[in-house]
Amino acid sequence: MTWTPPNGLRYPVAILGATGAVGQTFVRLLADHPWFEIAEIAASERSEGKTYAEAARWIEGVMPERVAGMIVRGTDPAGISSPIVFSALDSSVAGDVERAFAEAGKFVLSNAKNFRMEPDVPLVIPEVNASHLGLLDRQRRERGWTGAIVTNANCAATVAAVALAPLQERYGIEKLFLTTMQAVSGAGYPGVASLDIIGNVIPYIADEEPKLEREMQKLLGSFENGSVSLAAMQVSSQTNRVPVEHGHTVCITASFRERVSARDAIETLKAWEGDKLTFDLPSRPQHPLIVTDEVNRPQPRRDVDAGAGMSVIVGRVRDDTILDIRMVALGHNTIRGAAGGSVLNAELLARTGRLVVE
Amino acid sequence: MTWTPPNGLRYPVAILGATGAVGQTFVRLLADHPWFEIAEIAASERSEGKTYAEAARWIEGVMPERVAGMIVRGTDPAGISSPIVFSALDSSVAGDVERAFAEAGKFVLSNAKNFRMEPDVPLVIPEVNASHLGLLDRQRRERGWTGAIVTNANCAATVAAVALAPLQERYGIEKLFLTTMQAVSGAGYPGVASLDIIGNVIPYIADEEPKLEREMQKLLGSFENGSVSLAAMQVSSQTNRVPVEHGHTVCITASFRERVSARDAIETLKAWEGDKLTFDLPSRPQHPLIVTDEVNRPQPRRDVDAGAGMSVIVGRVRDDTILDIRMVALGHNTIRGAAGGSVLNAELLARTGRLVVE
Amino acid sequence: MTWTPPNGLRYPVAILGATGAVGQTFVRLLADHPWFEIAEIAASERSEGKTYAEAARWIEGVMPERVAGMIVRGTDPAGISSPIVFSALDSSVAGDVERAFAEAGKFVLSNAKNFRMEPDVPLVIPEVNASHLGLLDRQRRERGWTGAIVTNANCAATVAAVALAPLQERYGIEKLFLTTMQAVSGAGYPGVASLDIIGNVIPYIADEEPKLEREMQKLLGSFENGSVSLAAMQVSSQTNRVPVEHGHTVCITASFRERVSARDAIETLKAWEGDKLTFDLPSRPQHPLIVTDEVNRPQPRRDVDAGAGMSVIVGRVRDDTILDIRMVALGHNTIRGAAGGSVLNAELLARTGRLVVE
Amino acid sequence: MTWTPPNGLRYPVAILGATGAVGQTFVRLLADHPWFEIAEIAASERSEGKTYAEAARWIEGVMPERVAGMIVRGTDPAGISSPIVFSALDSSVAGDVERAFAEAGKFVLSNAKNFRMEPDVPLVIPEVNASHLGLLDRQRRERGWTGAIVTNANCAATVAAVALAPLQERYGIEKLFLTTMQAVSGAGYPGVASLDIIGNVIPYIADEEPKLEREMQKLLGSFENGSVSLAAMQVSSQTNRVPVEHGHTVCITASFRERVSARDAIETLKAWEGDKLTFDLPSRPQHPLIVTDEVNRPQPRRDVDAGAGMSVIVGRVRDDTILDIRMVALGHNTIRGAAGGSVLNAELLARTGRLVVE
Repeated sequence: MTWTPPNGLRYPVAILGATGAVGQTFVRLLADHPWFEIAEIAASERSEGKTYAEAARWIEGVMPERVAGMIVRGTDPAGISSPIVFSALDSSVAGDVERAFAEAGKFVLSNAKNFRMEPDVPLVIPEVNASHLGLLDRQRRERGWTGAIVTNANCAATVAAVALAPLQERYGIEKLFLTTMQAVSGAGYPGVASLDIIGNVIPYIADEEPKLEREMQKLLGSFENGSVSLAAMQVSSQTNRVPVEHGHTVCITASFRERVSARDAIETLKAWEGDKLTFDLPSRPQHPLIVTDEVNRPQPRRDVDAGAGMSVIVGRVRDDTILDIRMVALGHNTIRGAAGGSVLNAELLARTGRLVVE
Repeated sequence: MTWTPPNGLRYPVAILGATGAVGQTFVRLLADHPWFEIAEIAASERSEGKTYAEAARWIEGVMPERVAGMIVRGTDPAGISSPIVFSALDSSVAGDVERAFAEAGKFVLSNAKNFRMEPDVPLVIPEVNASHLGLLDRQRRERGWTGAIVTNANCAATVAAVALAPLQERYGIEKLFLTTMQAVSGAGYPGVASLDIIGNVIPYIADEEPKLEREMQKLLGSFENGSVSLAAMQVSSQTNRVPVEHGHTVCITASFRERVSARDAIETLKAWEGDKLTFDLPSRPQHPLIVTDEVNRPQPRRDVDAGAGMSVIVGRVRDDTILDIRMVALGHNTIRGAAGGSVLNAELLARTGRLVVE
Repeated sequence: MTWTPPNGLRYPVAILGATGAVGQTFVRLLADHPWFEIAEIAASERSEGKTYAEAARWIEGVMPERVAGMIVRGTDPAGISSPIVFSALDSSVAGDVERAFAEAGKFVLSNAKNFRMEPDVPLVIPEVNASHLGLLDRQRRERGWTGAIVTNANCAATVAAVALAPLQERYGIEKLFLTTMQAVSGAGYPGVASLDIIGNVIPYIADEEPKLEREMQKLLGSFENGSVSLAAMQVSSQTNRVPVEHGHTVCITASFRERVSARDAIETLKAWEGDKLTFDLPSRPQHPLIVTDEVNRPQPRRDVDAGAGMSVIVGRVRDDTILDIRMVALGHNTIRGAAGGSVLNAELLARTGRLVVE
Repeated sequence: MTWTPPNGLRYPVAILGATGAVGQTFVRLLADHPWFEIAEIAASERSEGKTYAEAARWIEGVMPERVAGMIVRGTDPAGISSPIVFSALDSSVAGDVERAFAEAGKFVLSNAKNFRMEPDVPLVIPEVNASHLGLLDRQRRERGWTGAIVTNANCAATVAAVALAPLQERYGIEKLFLTTMQAVSGAGYPGVASLDIIGNVIPYIADEEPKLEREMQKLLGSFENGSVSLAAMQVSSQTNRVPVEHGHTVCITASFRERVSARDAIETLKAWEGDKLTFDLPSRPQHPLIVTDEVNRPQPRRDVDAGAGMSVIVGRVRDDTILDIRMVALGHNTIRGAAGGSVLNAELLARTGRLVVE
């Protein structure tokens, strides 16, 4: 038997890891969502049984009233009835928990890194690679799951992939150098100690560079014959933490299969609208990619909220002295690069008729 | 007739542009210098005739008492008797003023960009390219000056050049990608507005990238037959301003004429001591280049004062996925990268017997 | 003859000093105002004749398109036809310019300090002391102006006055100690140098303490028999600058004519709604004063945008060990404490039928 | 039998809680101390058995080499042979552990709050109230300890007490209002989350205000007839956290038993040298109290390191509008206000012949 949401009603959803920083962003983004309704929230044993207001050290403005009084459940699928599950779990537990939910017939929208590079798990940014959802058939077939796992990418990878998708589509990237300046909210809460970052730069984020490099190849890869082929590009990255609250800035230098000028790149970036399937998704911003001509933008403090945190802003597109072009991209790491990305993935699933749980 | 400092006495020196941020650092560094003595200070008309204490909005701790009461002079060579002149002048005026001083027989140690790329003007970091002082003969001959101009490099270029000198010497750099995260003190005082930078990153510094790229080639070039040949490397850079007080951080990715591993690079960097001529200069730190093995260093807040601000710290030296190696370098932009660099240049001049003014 | 705006049309307004920080906030707040329409913008000679986009170094997000192309005029009343003028002029010029506009028949809504303490000039926060507009009759009579000047208060005074108005109304304040922690945007743009404030506190703001102390007495004074009687309270203040972008925090300790407990104070604060005349003004927030029970709020980063920057938030109301109560207040200094306050004043003028220019 | 250190040898000391922020400052300050030698380091079970280099996430520059290889012991007195013990333990465990050490015959120099307000435990700032050490006789007699506990005060209380001691001694304080702006290092490491404090102010520090108010009365009280009488002053405080690395700033407003002018207060503050017994203690700065005339000082970023972090700086001393005077004080919270204060206390014990353990 097949589950479908009653006409006009919203899909009931659960949020796993709802008390952490990304979990709180899920709560805020889903509190008034037109298609989804927060029916259940779950977190680790420490929080189980408390109200959400008691369990969460809330850092996102005013806590939505309806959620404040909800009782936090454990992360056992047996205790969750919602067919759709947003996961903000830490990678140390996400592997087992998310698998259990998928086996139990749930659609899992995951922020964790655990499944991202599995060949049968979609790593999706809807405007960029909606076709990758095609992996779900294979995933279910091979794993025997009635549910499914769809992942969204590392926050820095998401920003870079949106910024580069138009160029990859049109010219084919050959070499890619990425140097990031990442916000502290990317490390969760409490995350980075203030003593470590006030007036400072930390030129290291654990495990970030390999993730960023690998995920770029999958995100910008193509879906063919039931598989995603990794993009045939070389990627090198250096990742840094800076004293910024929200917004990852990425300095990009790239070469392409053919010679591309900054002028052509700008034109291509400005013309790009992303996959047509996303045009009427509620969380999609009008412009997933904004190109600025101001010489000193994008800047996290001033541009991070563009498109309600779902737009990526690109600026300083200019000819390079070694490769073809260099430019700077910026995106909101906890919205577009985490919770908002997952919500958009769920919307894409719904819109493409895939939110069907047996 | 030839001027030499009396035995045991210190060279009298003047500081031009003494009231600004770099000028203040000159005052602090020279206040107790064993070889030099601040005899005169000069600044723009606005300050002329005031005491230094009145003219300077001092931001460097406690103002040296002896200097506080000195009367600020104008920047006309006729009013300056010191044979050695440190210039912290803004580039908008440095061209004419420094030329006038050199014509008037002064040794000008300049921080300004104006003369750096002139083929007959040395752009010097003593540990890296002391031999470039050989240009002085040509400079005097061609220009007919009795004095001379010696420049030090852009602050970010200085950090990168010290970090890369050992690798250039041994392997020869082929391609170089530099992404900087630069402190606000690099923009002088008042410089960057707090509203522009608190919790923010500005991915642009006016005119910085071309300077950085050009100067790297000259700094790491070789002195042969009376000329400096630019190093035959390609350089691409992206420069950013971050909310850090002092210390420019540079993410470096490089390839060499032959394949170099991170392991070899580390060994080469650790073995490097810089030009022997600098070993007994008072401002030379024991280690001009420090290689750290800590995974998350160097960091400006914690490492910028190494070697009293004269050491460059390199860390995260690792194999690259596209070129040969990547690494992170850090140095103090107003000490090693500005005033301290000039003082070291003057010491090198003295030590090599060149401080002789007709 | 009397000017009235055509039915359904918005009042044309001019902004003086439109290129600075407060001026930009005026532009943003008035760009889509239901009652007012930006008809003219004016600034100093340096900007005159340029388009607004050329003249303003815009720091407020996206510049409203309609304004971007407007030509900046000079600050001579002869060149301004709008009957209402919002002034963000610096106090060094505001005195003469604002007087000239009032003489020329304009309603001047001023942010400058120049006229605030004049006995015939209203210093107004609509929810707190709308009755003070009664001074306008006297002002016009005594000065022979056909226009008028209405001022809004110093930004820190505004925050403190809104927070204390309910207590003053009900209990009468006797002694008041205020210690402020003020945002850098309070100093305009470029304003505070980043080298002065990153990781720092500056325990001094020029001329701020006397202003704050005086203005509190006028703001909380009463309008009787055509005059404002200063409130009979003693005020002592210490003002500090902190590395916060927007939002002035004020630590308040107060005693009253009768003994007041924290419990009573909280009840009084929560019940307060401000002057009824303001209930339907477009810029009035639903709650001009919000009382939080969270132990560690208000915080500028998290609460400054409450009520679109027009609410003042009060927290930590507790019994004092010397006086009666202590508490912490926070408000947005460039919105409620500057441009937004002026706009609300203009709305109050319109709503009370005073926007009539001969 | 009585223990005395061999001639010319340094006292062996242990550091409890050596891995935390204050513990690290102890290590740094004691690494080259002329009278004390780090013989043992101890910390919680998590660290026990590791080398110090492994156990401590070092944030204090370069770790002293001799300490890096020392094995961390547990906090059981049986495993510690040093007669002098510096405690940087958290208050959750300090009570039991410090008592055990005192019972076991050790001199405990404690930073924890647990024993500070006990009537028989000295709460000491040597320059301010060296006589309070007289409590030790009573402490040992009443508790039957062969060792002893000497505490130093809360970091903010220390700054305020040094700044006010001269005025208390001469005029007698009556009322005292303190508003603090405290550095993040006061909360230990990792301590304050960067997401909570970048660009923000938190107007609350748990348990800080009662501690500050109580401790002021004891610190400035007098030792008479074997007891410390609390100073007969009223104290009211508000404590705030600001994005500053090191240095607590305190805005002070005070009245005295007689009327005191700012001019008199300044003279009294400038003349003060602190208790003569401290004049030759190695950690005592030349000037425990520095009075600045600069209008906008003290500032944490610029003044916190005065006297190697052991001086308190006072500025903006001016007449008040309600009480007598107001002023601003600043001190280094982890040096003078924590580890450095403990070390100075130990030096006072040694100098006054009290470091005698049976």
